[in-house]
Amino acid sequence: MKKLFAEFFGTFWLVFGGCGSAIFAAGYPDLGIGFVGVSLAFGLTVLTMAYAVGHISGGHFNPAVSLGLWAGGKFEAKSLLGYITAQLIGAIVAAGSLYLIVSGKSDFTDIGGFAANGYDALSPDGFSMQSALIAEFLLTLFFLLIILGSTNARAPKGFAPIAIGLGLTLIHLISIPITNTSVNPARSTSQALFAGGDYTGQLWLFWVAPIAGAIVAGLIHKVFFDKE
Amino acid sequence: MKKLFAEFFGTFWLVFGGCGSAIFAAGYPDLGIGFVGVSLAFGLTVLTMAYAVGHISGGHFNPAVSLGLWAGGKFEAKSLLGYITAQLIGAIVAAGSLYLIVSGKSDFTDIGGFAANGYDALSPDGFSMQSALIAEFLLTLFFLLIILGSTNARAPKGFAPIAIGLGLTLIHLISIPITNTSVNPARSTSQALFAGGDYTGQLWLFWVAPIAGAIVAGLIHKVFFDKE
Amino acid sequence: MKKLFAEFFGTFWLVFGGCGSAIFAAGYPDLGIGFVGVSLAFGLTVLTMAYAVGHISGGHFNPAVSLGLWAGGKFEAKSLLGYITAQLIGAIVAAGSLYLIVSGKSDFTDIGGFAANGYDALSPDGFSMQSALIAEFLLTLFFLLIILGSTNARAPKGFAPIAIGLGLTLIHLISIPITNTSVNPARSTSQALFAGGDYTGQLWLFWVAPIAGAIVAGLIHKVFFDKE
Amino acid sequence: MKKLFAEFFGTFWLVFGGCGSAIFAAGYPDLGIGFVGVSLAFGLTVLTMAYAVGHISGGHFNPAVSLGLWAGGKFEAKSLLGYITAQLIGAIVAAGSLYLIVSGKSDFTDIGGFAANGYDALSPDGFSMQSALIAEFLLTLFFLLIILGSTNARAPKGFAPIAIGLGLTLIHLISIPITNTSVNPARSTSQALFAGGDYTGQLWLFWVAPIAGAIVAGLIHKVFFDKE
Repeated sequence: MKKLFAEFFGTFWLVFGGCGSAIFAAGYPDLGIGFVGVSLAFGLTVLTMAYAVGHISGGHFNPAVSLGLWAGGKFEAKSLLGYITAQLIGAIVAAGSLYLIVSGKSDFTDIGGFAANGYDALSPDGFSMQSALIAEFLLTLFFLLIILGSTNARAPKGFAPIAIGLGLTLIHLISIPITNTSVNPARSTSQALFAGGDYTGQLWLFWVAPIAGAIVAGLIHKVFFDKE
Repeated sequence: MKKLFAEFFGTFWLVFGGCGSAIFAAGYPDLGIGFVGVSLAFGLTVLTMAYAVGHISGGHFNPAVSLGLWAGGKFEAKSLLGYITAQLIGAIVAAGSLYLIVSGKSDFTDIGGFAANGYDALSPDGFSMQSALIAEFLLTLFFLLIILGSTNARAPKGFAPIAIGLGLTLIHLISIPITNTSVNPARSTSQALFAGGDYTGQLWLFWVAPIAGAIVAGLIHKVFFDKE
Repeated sequence: MKKLFAEFFGTFWLVFGGCGSAIFAAGYPDLGIGFVGVSLAFGLTVLTMAYAVGHISGGHFNPAVSLGLWAGGKFEAKSLLGYITAQLIGAIVAAGSLYLIVSGKSDFTDIGGFAANGYDALSPDGFSMQSALIAEFLLTLFFLLIILGSTNARAPKGFAPIAIGLGLTLIHLISIPITNTSVNPARSTSQALFAGGDYTGQLWLFWVAPIAGAIVAGLIHKVFFDKE
Repeated sequence: MKKLFAEFFGTFWLVFGGCGSAIFAAGYPDLGIGFVGVSLAFGLTVLTMAYAVGHISGGHFNPAVSLGLWAGGKFEAKSLLGYITAQLIGAIVAAGSLYLIVSGKSDFTDIGGFAANGYDALSPDGFSMQSALIAEFLLTLFFLLIILGSTNARAPKGFAPIAIGLGLTLIHLISIPITNTSVNPARSTSQALFAGGDYTGQLWLFWVAPIAGAIVAGLIHKVFFDKE
């Protein structure tokens, strides 16, 4: 139960901090944080909560991570449902909190696309569905290689949250223009629920591609890198 | 006494570095550091002084942190008054130093809002009092979850200042447009004293919301995460 | 074999992340990541994969690094060919993946210069061949001094990937305007193959200067710093 | 002798990387790194070389640091002259290398102010001599408190280069608009020699204020923080 609370709080923070920085601060005139700031914010949500509760739940905060660790032989199948449920609830409650705050802005009219993910017409820079699939697949694959490698028994102790958090920053530096960057089905779901419209119809890609990439990474790590 | 000096110097540095970067460098034409730079600066004040004097005083530099640690059972009630007093003095002396420096600028007329916190008309992007309350409450709550978790005996040793400092960077990346980001009553008080006017009238929120968030986090950590 | 896979994945990630961030996100209107973001991205590719697979292959991801470590007496000559081949294949496959993704952009016409390196007319800010030679030589020399020093037995344990990764970030902060920053012949080759034209004719410099700098650094470290 | 080489290379890198990023990349149109990038670059020169050669020479790279450590009882008086000489030579050779590279730019006319420090008319944002004195004094004072504290026997092991390097980043985030940020007489001297003119006449301040701040910090640390 303690583990599920940790996953709830961690995923809440990921969505509140990452998507929140995009919604409140990315486009502020002149002084706004831009994609660099949003990339930093997403990475730091994971870095901070991995140090705070990683020793409790492992610090997944992402259904694709839980599934990739399972594929790599580092997480039990029987815990998957609980973890993924806690992650989804945390993400959705965070999105609700963001809605509460942003709707108190003096010039608020509607949330537009919130911080939802998309492709084709909903891609920030007009990337196709095929580009989005390749990008989300490859980026999640490497995200899991980083997670599995840096938490391996032979890697230096204690540094994994830095590698993993800044790995997520890097992933956003590359791909915000492509899909607004998911690599995390819980994060995508929470935003699509509020953004609605066409975003909901594109949500499938942000479950399929990240989970496929994560599972392939789990197998690669198990076959090539995890043997003595 | 050594501990109070450490808290004085640490809180001086937090206000001098964080607010100073905002006052001197955020809006410099073309090359200025913007909200990303100010966010980094605030976080790095805590990261640096937590490594420098954290082993002496614990490195709170913030009345809400002292109260949250007390609520979480990690700090003695009898030390609260001394710590908070040293933090307030450090913050106010730092604000005075910033005033001395900025008033030596060739085109200086007045300090405007300094780096004070505010809501409604004094919110950088027009957020309401309710939005400010929710944001400051939630952000301080997570700040304390990060502090309590990363300094827990089961967390990796030595990394807490990185998690805590970059956690404060993250908090600023999210919320400068909302309230100019407080999560720290000493920081807010030091700026409101110099900015005066309506800022003083709004100072209550930046004591109430951060302290409430910190105490709730202390209780959450004690009940859910601190048990064996 | 496991080591060659590690070098393949690491160099793929370096090119996919570093060059990808430049191609997709550097020039995005208003919110783009600029040279700071690209510099961070290159550094974080190395930081993340050095934590992930550094304990397997040493985490070179760069022919100049392999040759510099050999010159410094830290890597066996017989492994050079395999490592450099794996690095080149990883870099070229990554460039192909970037091409696949970017060609799915709705307004795609051609890749222009991709993220290729150049001097004279192909230098981002018009630097001469001589300037490019000096810069690439000195920057790779210091990159290897950082690698050899931070992985030395007397340096603090576990921190080398941070020093090395952020060292590559620093190198990009200095020199993107000069040559678009190489210090890595595999990275340069992968981009020149796709960019074609005059970029291919200038590729020699991005083999000669980094390798010369790396070998000189290896000798400096062996003669001055590696003795008890 | 090995120690003096380490100080030579370290200070070369500090000036080449920090001042070089300012000269080449800060003002590049649209994509340039601005003050945030220059601040990161200065900090990362120290972080990287402190991990690379800190175990050899202590990693001062700055006459004010050597004098502050001496005042704090952590460095022998008889080594001061050698260290400061090596630092000055490293800084000046680096400035010469920067001149060689920048003079190979196709539109090169003159170096202007290079990356020299100044006040009054030579302050980037018009700050007076008095403002410059206070800022350089206080910032070097805290730089030394961070150095002395984070390298103290009771601080976490191995993290000092992160605290010190990012501390220098923070110092630049605050004060580039005030004096172009010195806190380092060797860095200032190397740039003033090439910039010439009025910059040479203002060089005294960038010896006096940093050294005074460093010595006061050494005494504060010795009296208040270094006792059991």
